[in-house]
Amino acid sequence: MCGITGYIGFRDAYPIVVNGLKRLEYRGYDSSGIMMYDGKEIHLSKTKGKVSDLEAITDNDEKRKKGNIGIGHTRWATHGVPNDVNSHPHVSQSGELVIVHNGIIENYDTLKKELISRGYVFKSDTDTEVLVNLIEEVKKNEGCKLGQAVQLALTSVVGAYAIAVFDKTKPNELVIARLGSPIAIGVGKDNSEFFVASDASPFIEYTKNAIYLEDEELAVVKIGKDIKVRKIKDDSMVDTNIQKLKLSLDQIEKGGYDHFMLKEIHEQPKAIIDTYRGRMLPNEGLIKMSGIDDNLNKFLNADRIIIIACGTSWHAGLVGEYLIEDMARIPVEVEYASEFRYRNPIITPNDVVIAISQSGETADTLAAIKLAKSKGAFVFGICNVVGSSIARETHAGAYTHAGPEIGVASTKAFTTQITVLTLISLKLAKAKGTMSDSAFRMYLQKMELIPAKIEALLKIDEKVKEIAAVYKDAKNCLYLGRGFNFPVALEGALKLKEISYIHAEGYPAAEMKHGPIALIDENMPIFVIATNKGHYEKVVSNIQEIKSRSGKIIAIVTEGDTQVRDIADHVIEIPETEEALTPLLTTIPFQLLSYHVAVMLGKNVDQPRNLAKSVTVE
Amino acid sequence: MCGITGYIGFRDAYPIVVNGLKRLEYRGYDSSGIMMYDGKEIHLSKTKGKVSDLEAITDNDEKRKKGNIGIGHTRWATHGVPNDVNSHPHVSQSGELVIVHNGIIENYDTLKKELISRGYVFKSDTDTEVLVNLIEEVKKNEGCKLGQAVQLALTSVVGAYAIAVFDKTKPNELVIARLGSPIAIGVGKDNSEFFVASDASPFIEYTKNAIYLEDEELAVVKIGKDIKVRKIKDDSMVDTNIQKLKLSLDQIEKGGYDHFMLKEIHEQPKAIIDTYRGRMLPNEGLIKMSGIDDNLNKFLNADRIIIIACGTSWHAGLVGEYLIEDMARIPVEVEYASEFRYRNPIITPNDVVIAISQSGETADTLAAIKLAKSKGAFVFGICNVVGSSIARETHAGAYTHAGPEIGVASTKAFTTQITVLTLISLKLAKAKGTMSDSAFRMYLQKMELIPAKIEALLKIDEKVKEIAAVYKDAKNCLYLGRGFNFPVALEGALKLKEISYIHAEGYPAAEMKHGPIALIDENMPIFVIATNKGHYEKVVSNIQEIKSRSGKIIAIVTEGDTQVRDIADHVIEIPETEEALTPLLTTIPFQLLSYHVAVMLGKNVDQPRNLAKSVTVE
Repeated sequence: MCGITGYIGFRDAYPIVVNGLKRLEYRGYDSSGIMMYDGKEIHLSKTKGKVSDLEAITDNDEKRKKGNIGIGHTRWATHGVPNDVNSHPHVSQSGELVIVHNGIIENYDTLKKELISRGYVFKSDTDTEVLVNLIEEVKKNEGCKLGQAVQLALTSVVGAYAIAVFDKTKPNELVIARLGSPIAIGVGKDNSEFFVASDASPFIEYTKNAIYLEDEELAVVKIGKDIKVRKIKDDSMVDTNIQKLKLSLDQIEKGGYDHFMLKEIHEQPKAIIDTYRGRMLPNEGLIKMSGIDDNLNKFLNADRIIIIACGTSWHAGLVGEYLIEDMARIPVEVEYASEFRYRNPIITPNDVVIAISQSGETADTLAAIKLAKSKGAFVFGICNVVGSSIARETHAGAYTHAGPEIGVASTKAFTTQITVLTLISLKLAKAKGTMSDSAFRMYLQKMELIPAKIEALLKIDEKVKEIAAVYKDAKNCLYLGRGFNFPVALEGALKLKEISYIHAEGYPAAEMKHGPIALIDENMPIFVIATNKGHYEKVVSNIQEIKSRSGKIIAIVTEGDTQVRDIADHVIEIPETEEALTPLLTTIPFQLLSYHVAVMLGKNVDQPRNLAKSVTVE
Repeated sequence: MCGITGYIGFRDAYPIVVNGLKRLEYRGYDSSGIMMYDGKEIHLSKTKGKVSDLEAITDNDEKRKKGNIGIGHTRWATHGVPNDVNSHPHVSQSGELVIVHNGIIENYDTLKKELISRGYVFKSDTDTEVLVNLIEEVKKNEGCKLGQAVQLALTSVVGAYAIAVFDKTKPNELVIARLGSPIAIGVGKDNSEFFVASDASPFIEYTKNAIYLEDEELAVVKIGKDIKVRKIKDDSMVDTNIQKLKLSLDQIEKGGYDHFMLKEIHEQPKAIIDTYRGRMLPNEGLIKMSGIDDNLNKFLNADRIIIIACGTSWHAGLVGEYLIEDMARIPVEVEYASEFRYRNPIITPNDVVIAISQSGETADTLAAIKLAKSKGAFVFGICNVVGSSIARETHAGAYTHAGPEIGVASTKAFTTQITVLTLISLKLAKAKGTMSDSAFRMYLQKMELIPAKIEALLKIDEKVKEIAAVYKDAKNCLYLGRGFNFPVALEGALKLKEISYIHAEGYPAAEMKHGPIALIDENMPIFVIATNKGHYEKVVSNIQEIKSRSGKIIAIVTEGDTQVRDIADHVIEIPETEEALTPLLTTIPFQLLSYHVAVMLGKNVDQPRNLAKSVTVE
């Protein structure tokens, strides 16, 4: 996931492109780059890091900022580590074509070999440099215009893309195309200028007229001319549909959602697919994860697996403990990173440490990793940000491909972390022989159905909103779960704390009677996970205990449940799945609930007080 | 700890003695017994179990209830398992002398051998049967009266006692004596009747005139005569000090404290001494614990120690994890019993399981023990109630000698559990060679100072009360600690929850910034443990983070601290000790605080709503 922006017209392009990149930084900030064309020369500026790092390069160098044409890119690393060479924009061999690209060219390897055989030399590891040279090769061979060359080149491409291409020999136009990744074109008065960007936020103050390309569409924008849009495959013309933007800048970045958190909640089906794609192969009955495959014996022979994390990632780690112990029968200990690092922990070279962090920058987790390494342990990282400190510091790892998470209250990071941990557990169980082949295949099939089940579950939003309205003024709440769903209770409580500032606390359901039950009166809402395979009867008893003390019960049950429905004040149904996979479903209503309560209470959902997205201090 | 009661006078003795025993059952209820003298014969009724079990025996047997003289006993087992034979009263060889005894005769073994050599035959395992025969032997040899015989016998006794002795040949008198264990004598009008009991509760409705014997005093009570009290050692007469009882029945049982919980908080120095007495030998540089000694290799060779518990015991278990891992370098995992038992846990014959429960009857813990045993693990119990189900179900164990805990919110059980876990950790560390001999001896010396330090700490009661008054109306609180004191933060929060119904939550201090910090505003009191050796600087940083969000800080610091004092709103000082031993001190202010808040809010401290002392259901 990356951000693209570009300008062609009569204004200074530099501030438009750079400020646009800053607005798109939520899409990633591993590296960034900009191309400026001053009427004669192309000037490229690229660097690892944020847009502010890019500005440090251009600030005292006026030629890097000169001109009325520019394209820029901010990168969320997927292919190739984030460094200067791999940064966009990429330039073709002749130096004439320049491209910015968001997406993945899946058949880049084949295309690259073909181009190398035709004399192309590649400077970077990126799929994008392959694409720009492919366009150059087509243009040269066919002797056609840029638009046609791009169109032809894209017919041989497998993958996803949003691109903007500039040709130094035709400097009054840009070619823009889309498949899978979003792109918007801003249209200036009388076609005097054009803007291009991953969303409309970079140009909202210049024009309200925008065209959103559909998949497989290609647009040629030329100063003074109407935009021409055509279908890439059949070359048919498409009626340009210029929309009047009604959204604010803020809303556009959020993809039409009111808050990043809500957007990210809804992104979970896709984020989970992105996380297991290419790894989980249900048809072949296989899980491929190079970080595990390459170190399989370390895992299988481990005395213990020690999971270290903080906050939400710690909760995902607890789910991991239940999964790995249950499926692969390897003892797991979950530790707060902050406690682990300061207590002279028992770690040996026979231990495997799994460190979990969305940002990959969590200070306590990073320090704990260094400590574990110094004691000879093998350390495996699970993080979301490619090339982050934790990704670099660990011996091996697996990324969650959740895309940038902007909302401070973590949502899709949690479910994608659980996805990775589920894959690891299943893989280890199969390798260790603690799970039958048929059970393994069954799990893969059930896992593949999860994103669609979450999609269905997200439709209960209105019902959750009604429940939120009933309990929004509660001063205290309890969240209860057992087994796989005990950590989900902790996470549900944390969400409510973080954004609504209501004191919610999670407990294993059976612990309630050892103290917390004293808190229960008729004002106390209690959220209970009571899925049909999760010690259901025991949880029903716990619910009865609460009801007999007048507590209010909001229960998460499996579709078709009748017993809990009879005693609970509210029930929320989740689709049926294996108990071990339910955390991926039961967590969704809790996320929505916290969100709605916070909105109703007028809290700042995306930037809750006192918190920071990535805790890079101790 | 046991309860004694007796009557001599003109009324039916049976109901007085039996109802008295019921009022003393808070002192223990492992077994009970009664002696009735009908003017001719002695009738003994004794049984394992509660006074209600005793009544089941006497109910349909009028001769067992007949007479105006009776003594009774309810037992908290210390020497010998609780069974019928070991139950009091005990009778001398001749059948003439009958005794009830509360306390421990430490040199009973020597005395017993001497008596056996003189032809005495013993029916029970108790130290008490030794004492009654010793008195008989003295009386026979010296040809003296009962009072003198008791007095002489006691001069050869080492230990603690409160006793009442009856002589069939002088049925109008009782001899009563005390050293270490309390005893009260109720005086009827014109000396027409006398009562004796461990506290005044058994006779409060008959007379308000009472004499409390002091240590080393002996009283002879004879119908129609004034009581004579003399010093056991020097035979000097003591002026009898007859007090007018002003206390209610309820208050007397609580030893003058307003609530059992407060009484139990103040009993902690003694309870800890009782728990380590005979086990910890600082002068010899030794810890003797038969349950560990007999199974030392199991512990030393354990792959893992798994601690299972619920509620407060689970918190003690967490302290145990920090202690054992830090000192003895054996990996420890602490599990909620309720979660452990239902999740197909990984347990092997190489694992040692430690189960912790005050009552020894906690249903989830008991079930978890059975599961662990079925998987071949060695299971070690730590409980307070002798002969409880968990004590019987485990392979070995160590009792906490805290005495009966009546307050539902556990206090002395927690600190004595930590005492046992500290002894175990030290013992394993020494045996494993992970702690130097000098460090080991240093720890024993420091440990021996703990009870006096708690005693000193209890004197800050007024200061804690002032703090309680400031924050009693808070709706939410946080408790923070790191390392050894992280579990104390959890326990501190649980106490407040249990009896004041204020939602308090404990966290490892560094986790605060991963979510809970969002709760903090100017209304939020935050209790922080910041002892001088416990990552002090890190905790100070956490306090600064809270202060910058306007939270109110109540900090527990080491005596002489200045840095935290400057920034906290309130500080409570604890005496200096080793960091690993601080949980025994830092927990005290939290107990007092919860107590005072609950009292100020008018809550039922000893019987908080919704809770039960011993959770014998799932």
